[in-house]
Formats: sequence, C-alpha cells, structure tokens
Amino acid sequence: MEESCSFRPSELSQKHIVCGMLNWAEYTIVKSGNMLTKVDTLEFPLSYHVGIFGSSGLTAYGGFFHICKPKKGDKVFLSAAAGSVGYLVGQYAKFFGCYVVGCAGTKQKVDLLKGKLGFDDAFNYKEEKDLNSAVQRYFPNGIDIYFDNVGGEMLEAAVANMNLFGRVAVCGVISDYTKSGKRASPSMIDVIYKRIMIKGFLVSDFYTNDFKDFMPTTIDYVRAGKLCVLEDISYGIDSIPSAFIGLFQGENVGKKIVKITE
Amino acid sequence: MEESCSFRPSELSQKHIVCGMLNWAEYTIVKSGNMLTKVDTLEFPLSYHVGIFGSSGLTAYGGFFHICKPKKGDKVFLSAAAGSVGYLVGQYAKFFGCYVVGCAGTKQKVDLLKGKLGFDDAFNYKEEKDLNSAVQRYFPNGIDIYFDNVGGEMLEAAVANMNLFGRVAVCGVISDYTKSGKRASPSMIDVIYKRIMIKGFLVSDFYTNDFKDFMPTTIDYVRAGKLCVLEDISYGIDSIPSAFIGLFQGENVGKKIVKITE
Repeated sequence: MEESCSFRPSELSQKHIVCGMLNWAEYTIVKSGNMLTKVDTLEFPLSYHVGIFGSSGLTAYGGFFHICKPKKGDKVFLSAAAGSVGYLVGQYAKFFGCYVVGCAGTKQKVDLLKGKLGFDDAFNYKEEKDLNSAVQRYFPNGIDIYFDNVGGEMLEAAVANMNLFGRVAVCGVISDYTKSGKRASPSMIDVIYKRIMIKGFLVSDFYTNDFKDFMPTTIDYVRAGKLCVLEDISYGIDSIPSAFIGLFQGENVGKKIVKITE
Repeated sequence: MEESCSFRPSELSQKHIVCGMLNWAEYTIVKSGNMLTKVDTLEFPLSYHVGIFGSSGLTAYGGFFHICKPKKGDKVFLSAAAGSVGYLVGQYAKFFGCYVVGCAGTKQKVDLLKGKLGFDDAFNYKEEKDLNSAVQRYFPNGIDIYFDNVGGEMLEAAVANMNLFGRVAVCGVISDYTKSGKRASPSMIDVIYKRIMIKGFLVSDFYTNDFKDFMPTTIDYVRAGKLCVLEDISYGIDSIPSAFIGLFQGENVGKKIVKITE
C-alpha cells in the first residue's frame, strides 16, 4: 500500500475528509504546510483519492506528460502495465493519440490491457524467452517512449529498440527492489547514437502549480466513463503484510488498497 | 583522427580553405548543403578548425551547455578529461564558474589538468582500486554534472555519487568500443530517487543556429589566451593506423590530428 490516511475516528465526517502521505500510526500530528489535501467524497469513492486522484494518478500524469514529453503518434511501451501507475499511463497515452503496448506477468492482465483498457497491444513477458526479440516484435518501427516500472532486462530491451531521440521515464525498478534479476546495463552506445534520454522522477516533483490541470482533466475522463479505474482492495489491518508482499510479486491489478474501516 | 579534409591539391589556396566531415579519399564530390564550412586561416592554424573550432569544440560546448545545463557553482566531473573533448569541457566549465575535477590515465595528464588547464583537481583512475571511493573522495558533497566519455564502472561510480537532479551527458563510451570493461549498470534506484537525467548526444545535433555563439565565444577565449589548445599531431599518411589505435589506448593528449601535407 503506497499511501494511508490516518485519523482519529471522531474526525471522520464528510466535511473534513483529508488525504496525505502519513505515518503508519493511530494518529499523526500534521504541521502546517501542504501535507494534507481536503477531498470531496460526494461524487467519487474515497479510495479514488489515494489512487487515480492521488499519487498514482499524478505519477502517471506527470511522468508521462512532463518527463516523456509525448507527441501524437508516438509509440509508447510500458512495463508493469497493469500496475497502479502503468494502467493509467497507458490510458493517458491512448487519449493523447499515442500507440501503446504494455507488458505484464499474467494472461488475465494482458487480456485486461488489450480489452477493457484499450491498449493497442500487450504481452506476457513471462512467456517470452528473449525480451529483446519480444519488444522488437511488438515495435517493428521502434519505441519513442518507454515508461519503466521494472528496470533490469526489460530496460535493456527497450533501449535496444528505441528510436532516435527516445525518452525513458524511470518510475520504478521492481527488479532491483526484489533483487530477483540482474541490474540493467542499457547500451550507452545506443544512448549516444540514438540520443536517448533516461530520467528518473518522483511524484513529489509534481506537487506544484505546473500540474494543476491533472485533477480537472482526470476527473473529466472519469466522469465521462473514458478512464477505467482499477482498484485491488484488501480488507482489514491483518491483510496489510500480504498486500505489501503481493506488490513485489505482481499480484495486484491496478491500485492496491487496504481498507481499514468503512 | 576524427575528421579529415580532402581536396584536390590545386584547390588549396588561402581563399578557398574549407573544412568538413568527408570520406577517406583522394577527393570527394560534395553535394549542396552545409557539409563544408569556409575557414579563415589567417589568424589561427588550420588545425584549429578540426579541433577547437571544429567538432571537438562544438561537442564540448554544446554537450556542456545544452545537455548538462550548468549553473554557477555546479560540481562537474569529467572522464577522459585530457582527451579532445574533455579538456575543453573542463575549461568551459571553469570559465562558467563550476568546480571541476577530471580523471585521466597517466600522471602527465593529471598534472596537465591541475596545472596548465586550471582544473580544481584531477586523479589517475589507473591508480585507484575502487572507483566509487575515488569519486567520493574528490566529491564529498556530490556531483551535479558528469560529462561521460568512457562509460563502464566510471559511469556507475559517478551516478552513485550524484546529487539530486544531477545530469549525465553521455558523449563517449570508450570502454564499450574497446570491450575492455563490462558495460555500465548504473543504479536505477539512484536515478529515480535522485531524479538523475542520463542523455546521449552527437555533435551533429548542434549544427543549428542555437549554437551560433560557440565560435565567437571560443575565438574570444583563444585570442585572450584563456583557453588552452592542446593538439597531438602525427605526421604523414603512414602514421594514421597508429594514431587511430592510440585513441583507444588513451595515448593522445588533447585533439589527435594527422597532418598529411603542409
């Protein structure tokens, strides 16, 4: 679970629901500043404010538009494409007019990407022996933007198949967190000759006025039923450890949320 | 040798000296376009137009100012710092008000960097057992800009010691050309948390009007005796193979030039 909101139960009224990145604690004393945002829970479920309207949504929106600087028609590749950020990046990219292919680790996720989420294509990386060939097959004309959530060999394969002036937004590197794979060695010869940019970012970089269009744009998409919201909710404090571990095993589809109380 | 100019001998007059990236050939038919630049040989040696005023100078200038986007006081690290591009980047960076440390592969080069070229510090990477510790020793407060000419472990060490929002200009990757070392695996966790940008470039990207200040600025520095010009000249067509191989063995100091005729 990436965010939590903690309040004294007595504070939980429709008028005063606020959201922010707080500690794991019974209650937290918040100093002045912009750590908390007051949220409107009348139109949308509360959970949307920790996912689509929260850090996952802003990570996807800011990462895609600010770091990747897309042009219409760009060919966009996403890893962990059914994850809390990836599934949103793919949808924003489609709305913007890009060609979008995602990879994920189960058939269920791949079907979801190609079906409900409207990706142009998707594949299960676990069924591929050679990631470089797989990426080449899905991008015979090269990749313009790679939104990376995994690092490792997938990053190498993406760089190898990148077009001139390609952009890599490094959002996550799950293969390094889990140490399950070797660290990526993207070809720096490709980086030079194709003038590739590889750039890391954090969502906190987007907590500025430059991104004030994020919420209205996203709310409009959700209201219009264009943007599909995926939540993977576990219930009760006992489910926290398994929910957390599941993130590193690719169990979640969309935003993983643990609901402590109604 | 990175460039050559070939002409029919009859064309060689002070009035018509031109410079460009041409084939290895007795003569070359040049189509219309901007492949050739007319050069003024009255004030400076002809060789300056293939080095400091040519692609090496523009690579250094464009790479540093356009890709690295320096701020005064930035801490700048250069590899292959006594090479044809590195020695110029270091000088531009010093004039601009940066703190500059270079690494090179001989004591002679290190002395040159710290002495004549005015770098703040320099070290011989061949004398260091652990590049990460070496870089950390020379940058106890971190690196803001790394101008990379070598790739490999030095790139890893630079990224590991980079400050928030650090920039890496990937200009060359000699360790990959020669296959003498393993390919770089810079930590993508560092790239994310420190929001590092790694970007490749080619000098041809700078053949635009955006860089029209390069020549007048550089000529002013040379005229004023501020910018030191280093040329490593071999004579005669027979010296071409050894000059070329020497580039990959770090033999040159400054711009390697083969002079075929007076």
